This record gives sequence, C-alpha cells and structure tokens, in this order.
Amino acid sequence: MKRRKFLKAATIGAAASVVAAPAIAQSTPELRWRMQSAFPKSLDTIYGAGEVISKYVSEATDGRFQIQVFAASEIVGTFQIADAVAIGTIEMGHTCSFYHFGKDPTFAIGTAVPFGMNARQQNAWLYHGGGNDLLNEFYAKHNLYGMPAGNTGVQMGGWFRKEIKSAADLQGLKMRITGPAGVVMQKLGAVQQAIPGGDIYPALERGTIDATEWVGPYDDEKLGFSKVAPYYYYPAFWEGGPTVHAFINQAKWKELPKNYQAILSMATSHANNDMLAKYDARNPAALRRLVGAGTQLRPFSQEVLEAAYKATNELHDELSAKNPDFKKIYESYKNFRSEEYLWFQVAEYAYDTFMIRARVRG
Amino acid sequence: MKRRKFLKAATIGAAASVVAAPAIAQSTPELRWRMQSAFPKSLDTIYGAGEVISKYVSEATDGRFQIQVFAASEIVGTFQIADAVAIGTIEMGHTCSFYHFGKDPTFAIGTAVPFGMNARQQNAWLYHGGGNDLLNEFYAKHNLYGMPAGNTGVQMGGWFRKEIKSAADLQGLKMRITGPAGVVMQKLGAVQQAIPGGDIYPALERGTIDATEWVGPYDDEKLGFSKVAPYYYYPAFWEGGPTVHAFINQAKWKELPKNYQAILSMATSHANNDMLAKYDARNPAALRRLVGAGTQLRPFSQEVLEAAYKATNELHDELSAKNPDFKKIYESYKNFRSEEYLWFQVAEYAYDTFMIRARVRG
Repeated sequence: MKRRKFLKAATIGAAASVVAAPAIAQSTPELRWRMQSAFPKSLDTIYGAGEVISKYVSEATDGRFQIQVFAASEIVGTFQIADAVAIGTIEMGHTCSFYHFGKDPTFAIGTAVPFGMNARQQNAWLYHGGGNDLLNEFYAKHNLYGMPAGNTGVQMGGWFRKEIKSAADLQGLKMRITGPAGVVMQKLGAVQQAIPGGDIYPALERGTIDATEWVGPYDDEKLGFSKVAPYYYYPAFWEGGPTVHAFINQAKWKELPKNYQAILSMATSHANNDMLAKYDARNPAALRRLVGAGTQLRPFSQEVLEAAYKATNELHDELSAKNPDFKKIYESYKNFRSEEYLWFQVAEYAYDTFMIRARVRG
Repeated sequence: MKRRKFLKAATIGAAASVVAAPAIAQSTPELRWRMQSAFPKSLDTIYGAGEVISKYVSEATDGRFQIQVFAASEIVGTFQIADAVAIGTIEMGHTCSFYHFGKDPTFAIGTAVPFGMNARQQNAWLYHGGGNDLLNEFYAKHNLYGMPAGNTGVQMGGWFRKEIKSAADLQGLKMRITGPAGVVMQKLGAVQQAIPGGDIYPALERGTIDATEWVGPYDDEKLGFSKVAPYYYYPAFWEGGPTVHAFINQAKWKELPKNYQAILSMATSHANNDMLAKYDARNPAALRRLVGAGTQLRPFSQEVLEAAYKATNELHDELSAKNPDFKKIYESYKNFRSEEYLWFQVAEYAYDTFMIRARVRG
C-alpha cells in the first residue's frame, strides 16, 4: 500500500509538472508571422506603422513573437491582402479595409466613407461606440479579425491639371481614385481610373488622367505630382479620418495566448495613435515646401462639396437598400457622426477657429 | 586529470545555468507597483485611464507585473503625487504635470498652456516633434520619467452664475481655476480660488465663488454644477488638448527589463488614445442632457478671448525671461503650434466646417 500510495503521488506529481510545463511555454511560444503592408517602404508614415507594430511586439515578448513586415506586392498584390490573410497564406496584413469595397461595400465603413467622421470621431466610434464590434462581426464572415492600426487625418483632395471651379468642371474628368469615392465621382460625371501607385505619375504627366488623389503633403511630395499637376485641392471629402487596419487570420488570432493578444492589441492601438501624430508632425513642412515650389492650393468650392454630398447620400441609400450588413453598420456610423459633430461644433471648433485667426494675424 | 577536467566542465556548466536562470527570470520578474491617480473613481474617463494601463500591463505579462491603482488622496494628496513618485513612496502616478506649476512653471507645458495645441497637435509634438524628450530632460531633474497617458480634448470654459458679456465682467469674479490659467485670469482682474474638487459645488451654491471650470459635459454633469450655475461657457482657452501624464520614479523605470518598458510604453500610449476616444464618445449625450435640463450654452466673446490671449503672451514672456527650462521647451512648443495650425487650417478645418454646416442644415 505504502509503495502504491507513493507511486500514485509520484504519478500525480509527474502529471502535474507535465501540465505545468506546457502551460508556461504556451503563454510565450516562439512565433514567426508574416504581415504584408499595402504600402511601399518609401512611405515611412503608413508603411512605417507596420514596422512600429512589429518592433513593439518583438520588444514586449523578448523577441519570442516576431512579425516580419513585407512591403506592397512582395507576397501578394495589394488588393489580395485580405484574401491572403483569410486563407492563411500570410497571418496578417496592414491595409485599408475599403480596398475590398468591390467584394462587399461594407468593407468601406472600416476605413472611411465620403463625408465620414474625422480621425478622433472615428476612433471614438471604433473603440467606444461599438464600431470595432460591429466591424468584427462582419469581418468574421470573411475569416478576418480586424484592429485599427493607423490613421492619416483628413486627406488632401489631390492633384489636378486644370482648375475645378464648379461641379461642371468634373464632367469627363479622368481621375485616379479608389473605393466608394470613385462611385461618387462617377455620379458627378467624372471617369474613375483605377491605377496602381507606381503608374500614377507617368499617367498624369502624359495626360492619360487629368487628376489623382493620394494622401497628403508629406506622402504626395515624395511621388512628385506637383511637377505635372499644379492645382492641389482640399479637403478630400471622401477621407475625413481614414483608418488603416491590421487584419489577422481568425484562427491564428484565436490560437494566440491571451498575453500575446493583449500585446498585439496595444501595439495596433499605439500604431493608430503614432501614425496620426507622425502625419501631423510631418505635413506642415511638406506643405510649405510644395507651396514654395509653386503648387497652387485651392479649396473645393461649396457647390462642388454640396454636389458630392448629395451624390454620397444617394450612394449610401442605394447600398443600404441592397446590403443588410452595410445598412446595419452604416446606421450606427451615421447616427454617431451626427452626435459627434453636435459636440465638435462647440468647444473644439470654437477653439480651433480662434487659434487659426490668431495665427494668421501673427 | 580526468576528474579535474570533469569537475571543471561541471562547474562551467553550473555557472552557465546559474547565469541563464536569472536572465530568464529577469525579463519577467514578479512586480507589484502602486500608482496613485489624481482623480476620483467616479470619473471613469480620466481615473479610468489609469485602470486601462493597469489592466493591459497585467494581461500582457500574464499577471507578473501588477500595477494597483489608487484613487485621489488614497495615499498622498493630489498635488503631492509627483513628489511621492520622486522619493519612491509610490512607483507611479497618473496626474497632470501642470498641478506642479507652483513648484516650477515648466511643468505646465507637459499638460497644457493657455492657447496651446489641440489634442492631435499635442500628440504630434510629444511623439514626433521632440516634446517627450524635452520634457523628460526636465522631469529627470525632478527624478521623474513621464509618459503621455490620456487627453480630454478641448475642455469647456466652465460654469458661471452670471453672464460674461465682456472682459470687464471678469473684474472681481471669484473663479475656481488651477495652473497657469489662474494667473491669466488674475491678469484679467478675476480672483483665482484654489478649491479641491469635492468642495467646489457647495462653494458655488453658496456664492463663495462665482464660477468654476472642470473638464467637459460628461464629467461636469456628474458634479452637478448645472444646478447652481446656469451659464456654461466654451471653449476653455486654457486647455486645448491637455495631456495627462504617467509619472514613474526614475530609478524604478531604469530597473525595469526592456520588455516591461515596452509594455508600459504601449499601455500608456493606448490609454492616451483610449481616454480621448471615450470623452469624444460620451460628451455629446451629456451635452444634450445638460442643455435639455436648462443649461445655457454660451461662447466666450471674441473680445474676452483676445484679452486672455494678450495676457497669456505676457505671462509666457515673463516666465521665459525668468526660467531657462520654460524658455527652452516653450520655444519648441510655440514654433510647433504655429506650424500645426498652418496645416490644420487647410484640410482639417475646411472639412469640419463643411460637416458642421451640413449637419445643422440636416
């Protein structure tokens, strides 16, 4: 009996240590993931946000969880990133949800819809207005888990070879523009052109296209558009505060130990914050350089904006009538936006108005 | 010889494992820290940001690094938090740098100076404009390491028993207000009153003070000021985008393993992002409730703002003349602010202007 008791105890002890060892190992497994960015390395802002995520995850885990960042097209094409993540070719992507607008227009809401919320309002909706949960219900149908991982702020309306004085000037205009904004431009009579980043400059130079949008002064300057299109319009009414997403394969996300999930959540939230701060820090000097070199800064006229706003509301009504996912998420988004601008028109807008005037007076 | 060789090898092996074991242990030591918040538990926004930090750090380290959050005054008084962190009574504090304006006015710049940057611009300066490095050079002299860990956005100007139609109405006004804004108010003829949070309501009710500022609709509503002061002014020209800091004892920060430093950096950046999103999400409904219950919303007149702006510039000139740390950091801050508003007046302001008008028209 004594011996059996001892053996039993020993067996239990051994079993316990067998259980304990993998439990410890499980919480800090060695992982090597691949994340493809939708952006080229030259854009230290938007591509850089992917590197920020990778760096912090590695540091926080003492190098045990490594996420290797690949630049645009290194593994799959930019518009195939979500599919590649969904089927597990890559564990993770850093891209714009609205690049998949053609697959399902609901993807647009994750990034930006025309006349959508600004960057702060977008974050309020995502983190504290139910936005992330609604989007992830939808992304789950595509085998994706999404986390906000970057924002550009309000973008510029882009580069035009001729002035756009009224909505009539958009008739027949060949413009490189993506996502739902392309549909709005078509409603206004423009011709949407889908051209990959690297081919835009020669197309604009040759006059194959009349206009292109990209991001804002700091990124746009690198692509040299100012040399072939003198008019730089603002704002991009289609991108008030676009979110860049980190998409993760559903199964890979669920397999992650809780501590790695927490670390990745923090890394993406930090990247979201940090990318916007970087754009805000870098854009002013780039704008000065562009204007100094002859770029003509122009606001879209109220009439152009009104026409685009009307076309946008039509588009969203059409999409809501056809697509229940779009309708459900857009309803939440639209109501939240209305409440946000109710609040922002008070303290935020009054403050910025005074500060802008004070600066101009010197 | 053989035995000596074996012993030597065994000794080396033992030494190697002795070195290896602590190296592993060192990267995930069990730590228990105490962090005092400057805010009461009832404020789930600003106190809540401390809990966000604590929760994520615990999750990311599988519970090995625990930061216990204490509410205002649970260990030391609110204005003693930085000192308590510096001498090591507590490892960490979650507070406003400008509460230590009396000790050295340079502390103000870490949070907000009157007519300072808005929340996004403040983050751009802190993370990508050299702000955090400049501030940490200064904080190091006080044995502190500081990380941005929250923002409220533009605050409301506060609650007034009588209307403020012109700067003359500020003469003799007894107002509860803290930090550099108190000095500006004194320059305008008001009488600054330093009253702890819990005592403000009865003072305002009895007429011991004529006005008080706090944060914004969501926090202010909880304190009930609307019942005893009908006029709610905006904006708080002294808090355009105040940063809440996590202060850490210098030695404790340096002792942390690199992975814990990374985790804490991410947790505070996330809290910075998350707190602003929470305020932006909660403020609109609170503002609706307040106005629905009879609160009279009033903008400060251009004349009042101009007078305050002039007094602020005088104050900053005086402080710069007396205090080299203030001068150095404020110079960087002021130049950055000017560049930021150059950029924000273009795409951001044009976009918000259109969206606010479109919403009002319905």
